[in-house]
Amino acid sequence: MAVLCRPAVAVPPHVITMEETLDLARSTHADHDQLGLVLRLIRNTGVATRHLVQPIEETLAHPGFEARNKVYEREAKARVPQVVHRALAEAELTAQDIDLIVYVSCTGFMMPSMTAWMINSLGFRSDTRQLPIAQLGCAAGGAAVNRAHDFTAAYPGSNVLIVACEFCSLLYQPTDLGVGSLLSNGLFGDAVAAVVVRGEGGTGLRLERNGSHLVPDTEAWISYAVRETGFHFQLDKRVPGTMSMLAPALTALSAQHEWNVGELDFYIIHAGGPRILDDLCTHLELPPEMFAQSRETLTERGNIASCVVLDALDRYFATGRATEGARGMLAGFGPGITAEISLGTWATGPARPAALTGAEARRPA
Amino acid sequence: MAVLCRPAVAVPPHVITMEETLDLARSTHADHDQLGLVLRLIRNTGVATRHLVQPIEETLAHPGFEARNKVYEREAKARVPQVVHRALAEAELTAQDIDLIVYVSCTGFMMPSMTAWMINSLGFRSDTRQLPIAQLGCAAGGAAVNRAHDFTAAYPGSNVLIVACEFCSLLYQPTDLGVGSLLSNGLFGDAVAAVVVRGEGGTGLRLERNGSHLVPDTEAWISYAVRETGFHFQLDKRVPGTMSMLAPALTALSAQHEWNVGELDFYIIHAGGPRILDDLCTHLELPPEMFAQSRETLTERGNIASCVVLDALDRYFATGRATEGARGMLAGFGPGITAEISLGTWATGPARPAALTGAEARRPA
Repeated sequence: MAVLCRPAVAVPPHVITMEETLDLARSTHADHDQLGLVLRLIRNTGVATRHLVQPIEETLAHPGFEARNKVYEREAKARVPQVVHRALAEAELTAQDIDLIVYVSCTGFMMPSMTAWMINSLGFRSDTRQLPIAQLGCAAGGAAVNRAHDFTAAYPGSNVLIVACEFCSLLYQPTDLGVGSLLSNGLFGDAVAAVVVRGEGGTGLRLERNGSHLVPDTEAWISYAVRETGFHFQLDKRVPGTMSMLAPALTALSAQHEWNVGELDFYIIHAGGPRILDDLCTHLELPPEMFAQSRETLTERGNIASCVVLDALDRYFATGRATEGARGMLAGFGPGITAEISLGTWATGPARPAALTGAEARRPA
Repeated sequence: MAVLCRPAVAVPPHVITMEETLDLARSTHADHDQLGLVLRLIRNTGVATRHLVQPIEETLAHPGFEARNKVYEREAKARVPQVVHRALAEAELTAQDIDLIVYVSCTGFMMPSMTAWMINSLGFRSDTRQLPIAQLGCAAGGAAVNRAHDFTAAYPGSNVLIVACEFCSLLYQPTDLGVGSLLSNGLFGDAVAAVVVRGEGGTGLRLERNGSHLVPDTEAWISYAVRETGFHFQLDKRVPGTMSMLAPALTALSAQHEWNVGELDFYIIHAGGPRILDDLCTHLELPPEMFAQSRETLTERGNIASCVVLDALDRYFATGRATEGARGMLAGFGPGITAEISLGTWATGPARPAALTGAEARRPA
């Protein structure tokens, strides 16, 4: 059975704090008639720091869609290799062992996608299957895990590499002045992550069941407007309240697995924002600390889109609290509105379990 | 075992003939110093007619990336439902029977993708998995079949709907004056297609093995430049010669299946251009008529990107020559340069075999 191994996550070097974000909002939008609301919403995110691929001055400039996309390509090629190498090492595999690469990213567009570049540049086999996904947004981290799970079910013993590359700061649109846009400017961060789903062996989340759920008629709630200036992220104010619509899907999938959704040992949940986490805790009747890893990634890195669930999973590894057979859920949420949910139990493989359950094994991001 | 059923293919109403294309090239590029070469290359495509979503006057205008993408969305929502309904009918299934929708399209960009709209608008279950793929170009038709095959292997008895939606005319870039661009302006056409992979039962290609192959270091040969004006298709003059690099992959996958690649009963091949088909015939030591369906789709519709293999498969159904157990290959080629290859044998299901083997069953496109 397939095991989702320990992810490798990295963030770029430029850091912006919440105070700096608030100062920027105050100075840039001094005349905005809802500035008070915007500042309150940003403060409520609880995002203390975010990492960006460019210094803030360059982030705030908009050099055009073409130039932005070139920065995306340059930064992806510079930052993806390190997380790929580490993820392969965590899984004790080499590039030659990988049968499928799932590459998820909604913050830049390339054709051919990064999968082709990775095969050419990082030592993967020329018969590696390529699955680039650009249109699932924040849900793509969960979707990648689920499609990797499916692939290993189709080909027992095969191995899948997942790469999530999100440079949300490259979607900053200075002309978007709606409250949702200004909030987003203070919420999202940049990161890259990679993880291997091992078809046999490995330590991590043994993938047992997955499912997807679309909340009817919410297509417009999280969306891109595609313009000459690139992708414009559009966030409806109803989004933070969607957990009442998604929690039943999490409950139903757990029930199919003969599990009670409120009684699992760990939860790796997309940290779209603080209310997402708070509401879901309420709906699943869980104490807040059950989402500790999701809260940590949100606080330290902001919403890093499809990378969130991999970062939270990495942090769960780092706690050292995972024990053989512990039951858990991984769930990504994103446009659609879609949830991508995975259920599994912890597997401590025969290989170097000590190194993987100790907090000291946590790699620097 | 999964069966790739009969596709439904539709083309939009506006038709442009080769003579009209040549006249347009002559009038638009009268001063181009390689006009003679361009006209010769267009004539050599053998593309007699192409179908476009807009009249030629509108096609030649460039109202901007945003407006173009809105036309894409409008036309996709107008044209996809009919092929979906027909593909479901061919498979004798309803929308409620579908477990995964694979939507492939490289000529427009939406987030959420058309999969969310289809679930909301066409009666699919809210737990239908969504797999939108935008970055595999012309290879995406083959990739969709292969990922659908994998999914049915992971979930025996499940059903997958594939939708390919390509409005290549929306990528017309009046400022691109390279020979490759001008040739592309005379080669590509618009179409939508859908097909079901049935996990059990059904008449069509029983999917047995699939594989992918990337030709090393050819990433730049077929690519998009992403600009304020949208996606700019870039075609290297070495592309028509790539069959010498891809034929060995087709041979190798066939050999893994213990088949001789030159002795199959039918071939459903991506009609990227005439030389692709001619060269592949030579490399596989096949008579030209073995690619008759691919040649037909190229002549009548131009290169319709990821729809090509589905259109060629529909035409193979229409011949009425398929017999139980006939061995065949389906292969898509695209950016990477990547080949997505599938091998299978013909299955004549118990359901209405007469209607599916007679040419009279061919639906109007």
